[in-house]
Amino acid sequence: MAKMVTLGEILIQFNPITPGPLRHVNYFEKHVAGSEANYCVAFIRQGNECGIIARVGNDEFGYNAIEWLRGKGLDVSQIKIDDSSPTGIFFIQRHYPVPYKSDSVYYRKGSAGSKLSPDDVDEKYVRSADIVHSSGITLAISETAKEAVYKAFDLARARSFDTNIRLKLWSPDKARYEIMRLLNQFHLNFLITDTDDSRIVLGESDPDKAAKVFLNYADVVVMKMGAKGAALYYEDKKYYSHGYTVPVEDVVGAGDALGGTFLSLYYRGFTLEKALDYGIVAATLNVMIRGDQENLPSTNEIEQFLRELGK
Amino acid sequence: MAKMVTLGEILIQFNPITPGPLRHVNYFEKHVAGSEANYCVAFIRQGNECGIIARVGNDEFGYNAIEWLRGKGLDVSQIKIDDSSPTGIFFIQRHYPVPYKSDSVYYRKGSAGSKLSPDDVDEKYVRSADIVHSSGITLAISETAKEAVYKAFDLARARSFDTNIRLKLWSPDKARYEIMRLLNQFHLNFLITDTDDSRIVLGESDPDKAAKVFLNYADVVVMKMGAKGAALYYEDKKYYSHGYTVPVEDVVGAGDALGGTFLSLYYRGFTLEKALDYGIVAATLNVMIRGDQENLPSTNEIEQFLRELGK
Amino acid sequence: MAKMVTLGEILIQFNPITPGPLRHVNYFEKHVAGSEANYCVAFIRQGNECGIIARVGNDEFGYNAIEWLRGKGLDVSQIKIDDSSPTGIFFIQRHYPVPYKSDSVYYRKGSAGSKLSPDDVDEKYVRSADIVHSSGITLAISETAKEAVYKAFDLARARSFDTNIRLKLWSPDKARYEIMRLLNQFHLNFLITDTDDSRIVLGESDPDKAAKVFLNYADVVVMKMGAKGAALYYEDKKYYSHGYTVPVEDVVGAGDALGGTFLSLYYRGFTLEKALDYGIVAATLNVMIRGDQENLPSTNEIEQFLRELGK
Amino acid sequence: MAKMVTLGEILIQFNPITPGPLRHVNYFEKHVAGSEANYCVAFIRQGNECGIIARVGNDEFGYNAIEWLRGKGLDVSQIKIDDSSPTGIFFIQRHYPVPYKSDSVYYRKGSAGSKLSPDDVDEKYVRSADIVHSSGITLAISETAKEAVYKAFDLARARSFDTNIRLKLWSPDKARYEIMRLLNQFHLNFLITDTDDSRIVLGESDPDKAAKVFLNYADVVVMKMGAKGAALYYEDKKYYSHGYTVPVEDVVGAGDALGGTFLSLYYRGFTLEKALDYGIVAATLNVMIRGDQENLPSTNEIEQFLRELGK
Amino acid sequence: MAKMVTLGEILIQFNPITPGPLRHVNYFEKHVAGSEANYCVAFIRQGNECGIIARVGNDEFGYNAIEWLRGKGLDVSQIKIDDSSPTGIFFIQRHYPVPYKSDSVYYRKGSAGSKLSPDDVDEKYVRSADIVHSSGITLAISETAKEAVYKAFDLARARSFDTNIRLKLWSPDKARYEIMRLLNQFHLNFLITDTDDSRIVLGESDPDKAAKVFLNYADVVVMKMGAKGAALYYEDKKYYSHGYTVPVEDVVGAGDALGGTFLSLYYRGFTLEKALDYGIVAATLNVMIRGDQENLPSTNEIEQFLRELGK
Amino acid sequence: MAKMVTLGEILIQFNPITPGPLRHVNYFEKHVAGSEANYCVAFIRQGNECGIIARVGNDEFGYNAIEWLRGKGLDVSQIKIDDSSPTGIFFIQRHYPVPYKSDSVYYRKGSAGSKLSPDDVDEKYVRSADIVHSSGITLAISETAKEAVYKAFDLARARSFDTNIRLKLWSPDKARYEIMRLLNQFHLNFLITDTDDSRIVLGESDPDKAAKVFLNYADVVVMKMGAKGAALYYEDKKYYSHGYTVPVEDVVGAGDALGGTFLSLYYRGFTLEKALDYGIVAATLNVMIRGDQENLPSTNEIEQFLRELGK
Repeated sequence: MAKMVTLGEILIQFNPITPGPLRHVNYFEKHVAGSEANYCVAFIRQGNECGIIARVGNDEFGYNAIEWLRGKGLDVSQIKIDDSSPTGIFFIQRHYPVPYKSDSVYYRKGSAGSKLSPDDVDEKYVRSADIVHSSGITLAISETAKEAVYKAFDLARARSFDTNIRLKLWSPDKARYEIMRLLNQFHLNFLITDTDDSRIVLGESDPDKAAKVFLNYADVVVMKMGAKGAALYYEDKKYYSHGYTVPVEDVVGAGDALGGTFLSLYYRGFTLEKALDYGIVAATLNVMIRGDQENLPSTNEIEQFLRELGK
Repeated sequence: MAKMVTLGEILIQFNPITPGPLRHVNYFEKHVAGSEANYCVAFIRQGNECGIIARVGNDEFGYNAIEWLRGKGLDVSQIKIDDSSPTGIFFIQRHYPVPYKSDSVYYRKGSAGSKLSPDDVDEKYVRSADIVHSSGITLAISETAKEAVYKAFDLARARSFDTNIRLKLWSPDKARYEIMRLLNQFHLNFLITDTDDSRIVLGESDPDKAAKVFLNYADVVVMKMGAKGAALYYEDKKYYSHGYTVPVEDVVGAGDALGGTFLSLYYRGFTLEKALDYGIVAATLNVMIRGDQENLPSTNEIEQFLRELGK
Repeated sequence: MAKMVTLGEILIQFNPITPGPLRHVNYFEKHVAGSEANYCVAFIRQGNECGIIARVGNDEFGYNAIEWLRGKGLDVSQIKIDDSSPTGIFFIQRHYPVPYKSDSVYYRKGSAGSKLSPDDVDEKYVRSADIVHSSGITLAISETAKEAVYKAFDLARARSFDTNIRLKLWSPDKARYEIMRLLNQFHLNFLITDTDDSRIVLGESDPDKAAKVFLNYADVVVMKMGAKGAALYYEDKKYYSHGYTVPVEDVVGAGDALGGTFLSLYYRGFTLEKALDYGIVAATLNVMIRGDQENLPSTNEIEQFLRELGK
Repeated sequence: MAKMVTLGEILIQFNPITPGPLRHVNYFEKHVAGSEANYCVAFIRQGNECGIIARVGNDEFGYNAIEWLRGKGLDVSQIKIDDSSPTGIFFIQRHYPVPYKSDSVYYRKGSAGSKLSPDDVDEKYVRSADIVHSSGITLAISETAKEAVYKAFDLARARSFDTNIRLKLWSPDKARYEIMRLLNQFHLNFLITDTDDSRIVLGESDPDKAAKVFLNYADVVVMKMGAKGAALYYEDKKYYSHGYTVPVEDVVGAGDALGGTFLSLYYRGFTLEKALDYGIVAATLNVMIRGDQENLPSTNEIEQFLRELGK
Repeated sequence: MAKMVTLGEILIQFNPITPGPLRHVNYFEKHVAGSEANYCVAFIRQGNECGIIARVGNDEFGYNAIEWLRGKGLDVSQIKIDDSSPTGIFFIQRHYPVPYKSDSVYYRKGSAGSKLSPDDVDEKYVRSADIVHSSGITLAISETAKEAVYKAFDLARARSFDTNIRLKLWSPDKARYEIMRLLNQFHLNFLITDTDDSRIVLGESDPDKAAKVFLNYADVVVMKMGAKGAALYYEDKKYYSHGYTVPVEDVVGAGDALGGTFLSLYYRGFTLEKALDYGIVAATLNVMIRGDQENLPSTNEIEQFLRELGK
Repeated sequence: MAKMVTLGEILIQFNPITPGPLRHVNYFEKHVAGSEANYCVAFIRQGNECGIIARVGNDEFGYNAIEWLRGKGLDVSQIKIDDSSPTGIFFIQRHYPVPYKSDSVYYRKGSAGSKLSPDDVDEKYVRSADIVHSSGITLAISETAKEAVYKAFDLARARSFDTNIRLKLWSPDKARYEIMRLLNQFHLNFLITDTDDSRIVLGESDPDKAAKVFLNYADVVVMKMGAKGAALYYEDKKYYSHGYTVPVEDVVGAGDALGGTFLSLYYRGFTLEKALDYGIVAATLNVMIRGDQENLPSTNEIEQFLRELGK
């Protein structure tokens, strides 16, 4: 079994039971979320191990996160409880004003999660992992969180990074600067991104051209394309894997589903191509429900999907 | 800022939380509705002003309507509270027996709204408006309501009319007679209709042919075509604007969304063509939820839709 | 097995899932109701038979009523489907503005139920019944419905009447006049009433004094007292049976539960006193839920209640 | 009016309000189900009569089933209440791990329904029916239930059988053996099946080839094809009727809707081809909701569907 | 008609549909709240006018607040939209760990509401009011908000203040210091408080003794006592008004209901004693539901309550 | 930290969202339950450790149980996944036919939980515990489960037993026989029971007398008395601790809350008397919600309750 360690903020998500502008939503459904936590659950569902280095508040939402993630099988020993800051939360607005898209409203400024710092990164713990993963979100939430990523990447045996640019957290310029700085400092094993982020980081939204540039910084580049699927680049190879048409409830978390599943299956010995096919199935199931972690499939379930609908 | 005044019945809508025949629906969701009220909210969302001349009962549903519409920015000063009749209500049956269609069950006979009469039409108020709007529904609900429309149209600086034929309120013959009588008496600035109504009124369901006839009575004719979009006719021009494929929750109110958005943007100085494109976006968002007014978009939101999905 | 026949209007009830003024209620729960239908179900739950003479609309709510009541075991052969009028409906407002009380908002004017007429009363059907029951509501909804009661009472082997005065349906004067007219014309076997109705009908709200007057018109008088229980008068006897303290969800229908259970057990051979004790249990369970018929207990269930909480 | 008698297990269905793996479902909606009961309700909705020979437990779920089915118009006189076994229940998992599919989790082992036996089959009752229907499920649930089917088929004037193989109830080998044994013993008037079941029973999943074999055992073969529609075979004729694209909530019960509607309309005098077209409409509406019986349309409603969307 | 102006933060409240610790709550219901906004709605419900000086974010929750309050009849002209900060929100935890109590979890640090400043206080607007009202919460949320209260109180014709100490916003010491500083600077017409706050501010939790001290700073002192009712002190008079036993859903906002109703009826010409009796009815209804403003009764509704349950 | 090991069946509970007979309940809420699992969570909430020896099915409900309990902090290493039997489930009927009481409907016959056997009892694991706990339910579900209890009690350093007689699982005679057999074989450190169970086991329902007999078999006897509280007996001492009046949602699980909290606090060094006071608080909170484990309080929360409402 491989072990991944991630660094990021665990958030409580409030997802409306009806689509449309939040002002008219009367009821919200609570879920545990956060990109790196999503990666972890997806990673575990394929039969590997995962721990997260994070901070939550000393409050009901913080305990909610810990209990849920421990239930899902995460090693929660590196989640610190921060007495002075609340657990970060966010609201989702679904299918409005753009059908099939979701928007996020954050209440995470000054959150416990953003207090993540290099002191929270236990050297031995990180060294024990086969791979360390984080994302642009963690770079964006605070200086100390960013430094924690640098410290962990410095110690890491292998590195995965999802660009995951959230323009509510930083400007395009800042995002480009910080991501390029990271790429320049650490060679990545896996870079997971999409064409929107590529345009911001590289000024290039053509997936093949962007991937070619990114391959200077990473062994493997995964280019997500939403409902259309995703493409994979490594060495001089490209592999495109199509998406599936399903009813869309909420697209938030689909990329994490893809990434976490893909990485885990790679460590299970799958080819990169097959790992990507499977990752897309995970992402597909993910968009059919509210919540980011509830529909993450096991390997067997992915195979059942593929047998009946698939490839 | 332009000001529109509408005349019509404000209704309370009970929309099932599950599709299928009403006998098997256990839970209903309450909304404020009524075609002319929908037009008003759509008109206001594009940055103009709107008032409605209407009557509601002296009951919780009547106060519900007033508070909701005042909240949405309507001038509710011309909504009279009728002590002797209840606020009209209706139930919607969704997707049954015809998928993607909605059926209405009215409890509005003798309602406060149907007591609307010429006495409720304040001359000065109507003259202050840039345009006066009403629909076939208001012609159908009572003689006095119809007379109120005549009085207001007589005083109006400009006139808009949506045929909006509801065969539960009158027969096709009666609808044809009354609508043609109105058209013969008042030249309209805007006539908003669809092919079903054209067939009833003109015996002609070909949109181009019907529009040609209608152009004798109106400067601009908008022909709604459901999910396919809508066409616009004026002078000797025709403009067709396509619709969008989205998940349909309830189509009730989509035409009002289109009409109110279109009119308002025209008054904001948009070309008729662009106003129609935007109106279709409003109608598209409208069918994705229950309720007629909750998903009416602002101009900015329409533009965000168009940037990401659109034209 | 005894057989009861009732005459009355079957209504569809919309009960808010949250208490408070209806303007702020977002969701409503649908139930089948109507005083005489409630009596029937309570009567059947004690092991006897019941049919209702009534009219419903040719609409989903009408079929809803028939299917539900047939399911509950009613003989629905005398429910006529009226093609020209809708099924009557009503909304309940709970715990506001008076805690523990419920208010009703009717949409039943001109309903199918109010079209009940003597022509709907089949002579042979009525003569087959051990007892015929109706209420002040049926007298109030229309002249023809009232005449139907007169016809049926004229044919009846035994008669039960619940005063059930609804001041939204008639004035106190009209209520008094009509109820006294009925009492003067037909001697009742059972008169079921409460102190509010007694004050309206007799100008007397003292239960004992009112009952004494009513005993001139009926063999047995049941005086309901809400949460306090009820009293029973016959010949020169009085029996008081206490109520139970339970959480109150909605008091509508409690009196019908009491009355229907009481009558049925009397026909099962219970003493009047014991039948009343049991009827109060049925009323007690009834106030704990929304809906009038869902919590009507069987005889065994009443006995289980009494064993654990009771007498 | 024709009369059908069915033999089978009535189940209480718990259907999640959200799709995804059951472990993450918080709320379940209760429905009355069971293949043969579904057939009955569909049969009745087309204007014929139906009774079911079945057993339910002496518990709330058993009474639930009886009251619901009586409400729907079934003759429930042959439903026996079994004091020693509970009513069978099942849970549905929707859209996971395969979108558009539903999975069932049964709690029916040793249920009252499985105690069905030849003693429950009243000779006179069965002989009074125009046709007797059952399914592979009834063969699978117990030896005594299977024998009940044999007894009833032996007495039947005409026979219909739906293969309905549930691999959670028996192995493919057992299913093949038992179904072929039945087919060898009784010539069927109607055999309703699909390509999955044909592969199990005949080792042949090509619909035309499978149907050809099945025609040795039945006068009419209906081959269901899910969203693609269905085909009909009799004598040397084949008729294919296409399906409709609608939003899928839960596919469970769609085949029963098709079968019951088809059989009933045949007995109403429709051609087999037209009866199949109508049956597909019933199946189409059925997949749009949770629950198997709530969306079963009347003949008029099917025709409204066809006028607006159809053929 | 009297006019009140209040200064405070409008919040969006997320109220769990089930009691217990928030980690186990799955669904939350959205409401518009904030102490001073609650006061305004209560004030308006008694037939007077009210405006609020406040800031909300340029986000869906901010527009939600404005639309709702405008619907309720508030003058929202002085609510500024703050482009740089989000609308404040909070979660309620009900009946846990202490039955009948509610706890609040704020996400309001750095909120738009806390950006309220003296610049937002329009001199003319404040001078037009008969009375200006604020609370300890507004003193606590920021220095600039506090200064806004000072500016408004300085300009006010009459002043009302509710101590409303929230220990999640400031320490007891800070609360005591700031409230005493305010009392020393401005003589109040009305001081509304309770025994908990009195203990913090004065070190005295005996209501009579505390009131005596407070009367040095205010003409009228209202001492709230939860379910027990409230007491009123002025000159050398004391009046105690009892509370009512009702089912408690959520106590948040009850004090505001009492205070706003009391002040408004005083301005309507009621005696202080009668105004207090009525205020307690408003508070009583308020605790029966989730949400702070939905159950605020009109004067007529209070009188209906009192006729049926009351004094 | 003390460690407890329990043996028992983990069940999935379906709790109706509305009270009344199950036939009329439309929606059910899912929870993880089972007496010994409840004990474990209560034990852990007081700061100690707990593991459970149990079997669940290889199904969604089984994984649901494991994930939930792992989340709550249980050691789930001894929960075996049984491939051949389903996870046991049950339904609750609330407040009907007896207000304030709950009834259970089991679907647990042949469940994975009942397959618990001595082979599942790891000697080393049991010896590592400070105390081993089980209940009458585990004795009742199967012979092998009972034997597992015997094996574990034989190895145990200390023993706790809750009589927990469920008459749907065994007869009174069988219950008495088996419980007395266990008591005769093993001296208990803690016996937790109530007066109903005492009457069955000892023929004695007076708490003091029953406790006196039970003290021959156990060092400490806790006699639960529902809403009235509980009494404690040891040596020649008796201590009575009163209950609290709160709104009752569902009483199921209250006894487990009391027992698990009591035992854990005893091991934390509390006096037996104080541990009982705290246990009653846990039970009190427990009856206010649906679900058995969601409202189990921490020690701090109990103390907050006691400070505000308590002793």
